Amino acid sequence: MTTRLEQQIAFLNEADKLKSVTRGTLLCDASRAENSAEHSWHLTLYALVLADQAGPDVDITRVIKMLILHDLVEIDAGDNPIFGNYDTADMEAQEQLAADRIFGILPNDLRDDLRATWEEFEANETPTARFAKSLDRFQPPMQNLAAGGGSWVEYNVTEAQFVEKVGRKIQTGAPGLWEFARARVSAWFAARG
Amino acid sequence: MTTRLEQQIAFLNEADKLKSVTRGTLLCDASRAENSAEHSWHLTLYALVLADQAGPDVDITRVIKMLILHDLVEIDAGDNPIFGNYDTADMEAQEQLAADRIFGILPNDLRDDLRATWEEFEANETPTARFAKSLDRFQPPMQNLAAGGGSWVEYNVTEAQFVEKVGRKIQTGAPGLWEFARARVSAWFAARG
Repeated sequence: MTTRLEQQIAFLNEADKLKSVTRGTLLCDASRAENSAEHSWHLTLYALVLADQAGPDVDITRVIKMLILHDLVEIDAGDNPIFGNYDTADMEAQEQLAADRIFGILPNDLRDDLRATWEEFEANETPTARFAKSLDRFQPPMQNLAAGGGSWVEYNVTEAQFVEKVGRKIQTGAPGLWEFARARVSAWFAARG
Repeated sequence: MTTRLEQQIAFLNEADKLKSVTRGTLLCDASRAENSAEHSWHLTLYALVLADQAGPDVDITRVIKMLILHDLVEIDAGDNPIFGNYDTADMEAQEQLAADRIFGILPNDLRDDLRATWEEFEANETPTARFAKSLDRFQPPMQNLAAGGGSWVEYNVTEAQFVEKVGRKIQTGAPGLWEFARARVSAWFAARG
């Protein structure tokens, strides 16, 4: 007989594996690739510090909850760098299976609550989810600018690809951050030639 | 002339350095030492999942805010493993200087808000701070149990030292978690002999 608290701790121990999932983004000092756990922490700090960039319908407490949870499925499904090549439908199917398994470790009430929060983030339809997703898209270019190009160099990204794959999602949820990022990113691509 | 948003981003880039601060605790699979950024993320997940262990006067949203911020001063002051030897007054003085510098990068309103949140956590007097501090003390033994001893082995810790330095702080803010941890930790020390 597994107690409620044993289930909660089993989930938290399983979540520890997110610290070993490597992302395409480098740290600001370019010393190594970022992992998905420390990335998730950094995004919660982005939400605290950039809350004034959110529209009036955004619930910042829920943004933070989404950002804490948003990458847990990568424990099974891995990280898919935004400029990498992968099958979107296949990735989404893998992430759903991962969510079944990982959130399924929890007691049912917590499983349902955390799964619903993650699904809202993934659907990217509510103002709260859109702001959370914008932060998730805005942090990597800030890291890349600091690191001298980072994943843009590694994946040989063009400015047009950046605007298409990253810019639009930042703009949807956080137009002020997009304005800030766009000027700086354009200057970087112009200097690279 | 530095804009507000430039100050906010400068702070977020500075915060990136927390990913390079190494702790005494190992990951659950004992593959490497944990860093303070991923530890902070893990604690926010502990707060979400273990909110039912908090007393009625605890504000979980504020617990999460505290846990996001609680280790930022380690960028300058470093991590002091709980079973290591250090001068507490000297450490606290270093952390105050670190807080001056790091939170000082922010616009004044955010600097004051985040500093006050961190000071409340450090003072460990409100029910909210005590619960946050209990989670910060409860996560390392969970990691150590999974990792086959972790920092208890490295620092040659006795059960009495554990109860004195860790147990009391868990018990103060989260008695249910202390009950859970104590039985398992005692069994580990008994098995080690």
